[in-house]
Amino acid sequence: MSKVKSTSQRNDTRQELIRVGTEIIAQRGFNTTGIEAVLKTAKVPKGSFYYYFASKDDFGLAVIDQFAAEYMHELDEFLKDKSASPLTRIRNYLEAGVAAMTGCACSRGCPIGNLSQEMANQSEKFRARLEQVFLSWKRRLAECLEEARQAGEISPESDVEQLAEFLLTGWEGASLRAKVTRSVKPMEDFIEIFFTRVLR
Amino acid sequence: MSKVKSTSQRNDTRQELIRVGTEIIAQRGFNTTGIEAVLKTAKVPKGSFYYYFASKDDFGLAVIDQFAAEYMHELDEFLKDKSASPLTRIRNYLEAGVAAMTGCACSRGCPIGNLSQEMANQSEKFRARLEQVFLSWKRRLAECLEEARQAGEISPESDVEQLAEFLLTGWEGASLRAKVTRSVKPMEDFIEIFFTRVLR
Repeated sequence: MSKVKSTSQRNDTRQELIRVGTEIIAQRGFNTTGIEAVLKTAKVPKGSFYYYFASKDDFGLAVIDQFAAEYMHELDEFLKDKSASPLTRIRNYLEAGVAAMTGCACSRGCPIGNLSQEMANQSEKFRARLEQVFLSWKRRLAECLEEARQAGEISPESDVEQLAEFLLTGWEGASLRAKVTRSVKPMEDFIEIFFTRVLR
Repeated sequence: MSKVKSTSQRNDTRQELIRVGTEIIAQRGFNTTGIEAVLKTAKVPKGSFYYYFASKDDFGLAVIDQFAAEYMHELDEFLKDKSASPLTRIRNYLEAGVAAMTGCACSRGCPIGNLSQEMANQSEKFRARLEQVFLSWKRRLAECLEEARQAGEISPESDVEQLAEFLLTGWEGASLRAKVTRSVKPMEDFIEIFFTRVLR
């Protein structure tokens, strides 16, 4: 075998490090995640980390980008599902979030929310990237709410940008509370109040 | 001077360690806060930490208790202010939160929210203590909302427990967003929607 790694081998290993990193960061946070632990779990030789990433920060940002891309894909599956009305799509997306939280026994929460809490204050690079991710989600939700407005599902005077911001903000808060109460009730309460009071 | 510290000296030093710890934990999180850094900043001799605290966890829990007691005192000042109507008291409390966040240029957020994000998953002791704190705040807010209900400021059918949970949850989410956007707008939007849509 050649000592020079092929581009696809390099990409596979890089992806594996990101996958393992996402798991470990979800459990411990970014600051306390050691590069050695990531390499060991991914069974990648010690010392080769800098072949794949310029720095630990670069690695963290790659984890954010990867998660953001996957999540946006999922979000689109819900929000572009033309078989359901715009509001039903948003509800389906939120209900899937409740199911996912139930699936992990309320131990995870949103990696972007977690990293925001931990890093927004410590690194301008992380803060700016996390803000971009939030804004991309908000844009998609605002588009779907605009469809709901045009379809007459919500009041024609609705400020869809403000509602999208409120939805994301409240949902992050509810996911955090779910972790602390070890129950999805705060998420269910949020959904109920959002649909019956905020959007009515 | 006697080598035996008096009880009041011991309490003063313990308080100073908690005060400094609260600051450092707010900046870096609990896991990456080193006991040495706390001792150094508080100008307390190395090695005497365990005279004041049984463990680093014990120290972290003391930081939570101290903050929770101070915050409850502040919350009571707003919520028991009989010169204002129950809903005005809640609004005054939230507006003060916006002012505090403006004062720190959106760099802090709520220590209880921050620690929840970081620790709920890692330590059952921390999770349970943080949950107690949330529940004590929720109880106070529910009491004030019940006063508002009885005074006819909100609908008689309102579920004040659910509304209090929603308020706390949304407020934590909005504080987190304020840190990431470096703006209090998410908090202001939350207040507006809470009063005009959720409580209407």
